[in-house]
Amino acid sequence: MIGVRSAIVALSVLGLTASAGAHPRRPDAAASVPAIVASPAFKSAMSAFEREHDRVVADTITLTEIEAPPFKETRRAQAYLAMLKAHGLTDVEMDDIGNVMGIRRGTGPAGGKLVVIAAHLDTVFPEGTNVKVRREGTKLHAPGIGDDTYSLAVLLGYLRALDAAKIRTERDILFVGNVGEEGPGDLRGMRYFFGQGKYRDRVHAFFSMDGTEASRVTHGAVGSRRYRVTFKGPGGHSYGAFGIVNPMQAMAKAVVDFGAVQVPAKPRTTYAASVVGGGTSVNSIPDAIWLEVDMRSESRDELAKLDAKFLQIVKDAAEFENRQRSTRLGRITVEPKLIGDRPAGQTPESAEIVRATAAAVKAAGYTPQLGASSTDSNVPISLAIPAVTIGSGGSGARAHSVDEWIDVAKPEAVKGAAVGLASILAMAGVAR
Amino acid sequence: MIGVRSAIVALSVLGLTASAGAHPRRPDAAASVPAIVASPAFKSAMSAFEREHDRVVADTITLTEIEAPPFKETRRAQAYLAMLKAHGLTDVEMDDIGNVMGIRRGTGPAGGKLVVIAAHLDTVFPEGTNVKVRREGTKLHAPGIGDDTYSLAVLLGYLRALDAAKIRTERDILFVGNVGEEGPGDLRGMRYFFGQGKYRDRVHAFFSMDGTEASRVTHGAVGSRRYRVTFKGPGGHSYGAFGIVNPMQAMAKAVVDFGAVQVPAKPRTTYAASVVGGGTSVNSIPDAIWLEVDMRSESRDELAKLDAKFLQIVKDAAEFENRQRSTRLGRITVEPKLIGDRPAGQTPESAEIVRATAAAVKAAGYTPQLGASSTDSNVPISLAIPAVTIGSGGSGARAHSVDEWIDVAKPEAVKGAAVGLASILAMAGVAR
Repeated sequence: MIGVRSAIVALSVLGLTASAGAHPRRPDAAASVPAIVASPAFKSAMSAFEREHDRVVADTITLTEIEAPPFKETRRAQAYLAMLKAHGLTDVEMDDIGNVMGIRRGTGPAGGKLVVIAAHLDTVFPEGTNVKVRREGTKLHAPGIGDDTYSLAVLLGYLRALDAAKIRTERDILFVGNVGEEGPGDLRGMRYFFGQGKYRDRVHAFFSMDGTEASRVTHGAVGSRRYRVTFKGPGGHSYGAFGIVNPMQAMAKAVVDFGAVQVPAKPRTTYAASVVGGGTSVNSIPDAIWLEVDMRSESRDELAKLDAKFLQIVKDAAEFENRQRSTRLGRITVEPKLIGDRPAGQTPESAEIVRATAAAVKAAGYTPQLGASSTDSNVPISLAIPAVTIGSGGSGARAHSVDEWIDVAKPEAVKGAAVGLASILAMAGVAR
Repeated sequence: MIGVRSAIVALSVLGLTASAGAHPRRPDAAASVPAIVASPAFKSAMSAFEREHDRVVADTITLTEIEAPPFKETRRAQAYLAMLKAHGLTDVEMDDIGNVMGIRRGTGPAGGKLVVIAAHLDTVFPEGTNVKVRREGTKLHAPGIGDDTYSLAVLLGYLRALDAAKIRTERDILFVGNVGEEGPGDLRGMRYFFGQGKYRDRVHAFFSMDGTEASRVTHGAVGSRRYRVTFKGPGGHSYGAFGIVNPMQAMAKAVVDFGAVQVPAKPRTTYAASVVGGGTSVNSIPDAIWLEVDMRSESRDELAKLDAKFLQIVKDAAEFENRQRSTRLGRITVEPKLIGDRPAGQTPESAEIVRATAAAVKAAGYTPQLGASSTDSNVPISLAIPAVTIGSGGSGARAHSVDEWIDVAKPEAVKGAAVGLASILAMAGVAR
């Protein structure tokens, strides 16, 4: 109840009632969830979703087997664009950054506020990764299948379900397959969408569907700072120049010291030394080694503290190596380059979208798990646009590893998928 | 004088007098050098070499401009094979590993002990490297030109010089252009030659001509052990799976501990962590990181000690990481793979071949520089077959870099080339 009261405050502060003039004042979205879920139309939609379950699975496999490494999402994007078109959306297009999208028109006037539901096209896996889906009963194994390809297919399932149940919404719903969610992409799909995209001023509510867990209501944006650090030295013959400083040693010292840093469990703060490379040949002292690291926190302050520690560590590691070995041919230098910077922040727990999504989770029979993560929602959250990240339903594990898998056993998958559909309908408003 | 006495001991120990039965007992080869160099026949040979200097240069350019990357020496080998044939050698052939060779018959019985002079065909440069020779006066610039293509041309010059001066030797001389001297080749040409080749039991003395410096008598074989070590772990999402073991940390710990190892300056022993790679993406805890290292020593024992230390270090580093972080999704494992193994050893300073070569260096007007290196001679040295590596004459620099060059100014080139010819003749014995 307190939640509701503070939500009203939040709504006026954020100007979320801007389109209210075009419609009679809507009931609170969270309050509308039980009625939506109980309605014959919603039940009919979910029955259609269930009937079409095999097609969701088939679309998942099709899309998973089209590689989509960071910055190379185009082929998958084009396939998804064709699917969006085939599902009867209007204004289907690929924007300048590579996001594909289309509108399911509501009953309200064209050009009004809309609800966005997005799943990301990209995976973390480089070109040449084996993306062939291996099926074991209801378990599907493939890199990227749960993060986030299954979500793309679920969104298409929603479209068929809404059409089958003849559900119209008041607001338009924009269905998006976006680029650049994963690491190196640094949210470029959503940065473009909210920075220059044509819908940037029309977003009433933003949902990112990312991963499977249906009970998750990710309203916190975990911030991240990512670096590519290059350690340089003179290099030389491994035998002839033995004794000179080696940038490999400086890199290693930095990783060891970084690995000893203690971070709080609450607010959750993490780090990883993730990618490394460099060296001329096995019989050469390298002249350059680079290292990529990821640091994250729910808290802006903790992230800033960790960031400062890391920068000090790499600097100290270079100096350590300059004392350890000879600098007669040159010194170790270190150049940290910021390659990722995601804002931390929160859609308040009291916000309508958070309460509505939590209500949808409960209505589906789960206990809402409110939390924080680093997803496409970071961008709208940092702009104070109401946003949450939700799960697709089903289950899965081992995201970002080649052992990634999902379980698409029908009962659980359909039960979980109801969360997203109910949340979207609540925020878009079901037309009478 | 002490050198001479100990040489006689060495000769009997090494069985170098085995073929003495077929010939009257030969004078010590080192002692014979002054007479050989002073002989009209030798002077006539070197005059012919000098007259043909331009042809040596022309052959150098021809061969340099045929690319010969590691494992891809065949085209150059075939060209050199044709040249050996054209120089009237017998038994000209390419062996199963790709070495090309031919015999200049001596006056002794066929099938007896012989003297080998080899230069290597391969370069360190990958396919597609620009190998066009750029000439500036007597300076020739091209990758691989001094290491070791010029030597190949000098050997052909020796053949023409010997023929012009009608010099016959007692022992056969086997002229070889061999494969696999450089890094990744790991001496495979000479390993085959001395392991399975048809001449393996007939070698009285082995000369490798490698590089230009005529004063160099490389009788020590610097041994090396090279590893590619792969650290593996479960991998996972940098935020979601934070706290699990990270193979990057294990690699870094191993590099730091390796970097703290103390090695003796004498016998010279060195190491380098040289090449590294791995990782899935900046936002993933990697599932595998690999590291390449090079270890070398003039001493077999020191190399073995260093090798054992390194293997212990990588094992301990994996276990350290397994204690540092959670193994709930799996443990760090480590797989060291030996990718290079060159035996260490020495042809004793007292050995006839070392003293004869040093005498030839002195006779040419240089001061002998005895030393150790990692060359084709490592293989026979490890088998206690008398072997040294010598220079071609001339000068040069920047080997293993694309800026490599040699200077073929005639006086210095001819003066230096006399060292190899006199050394070979001393060991083969000049027939009366």
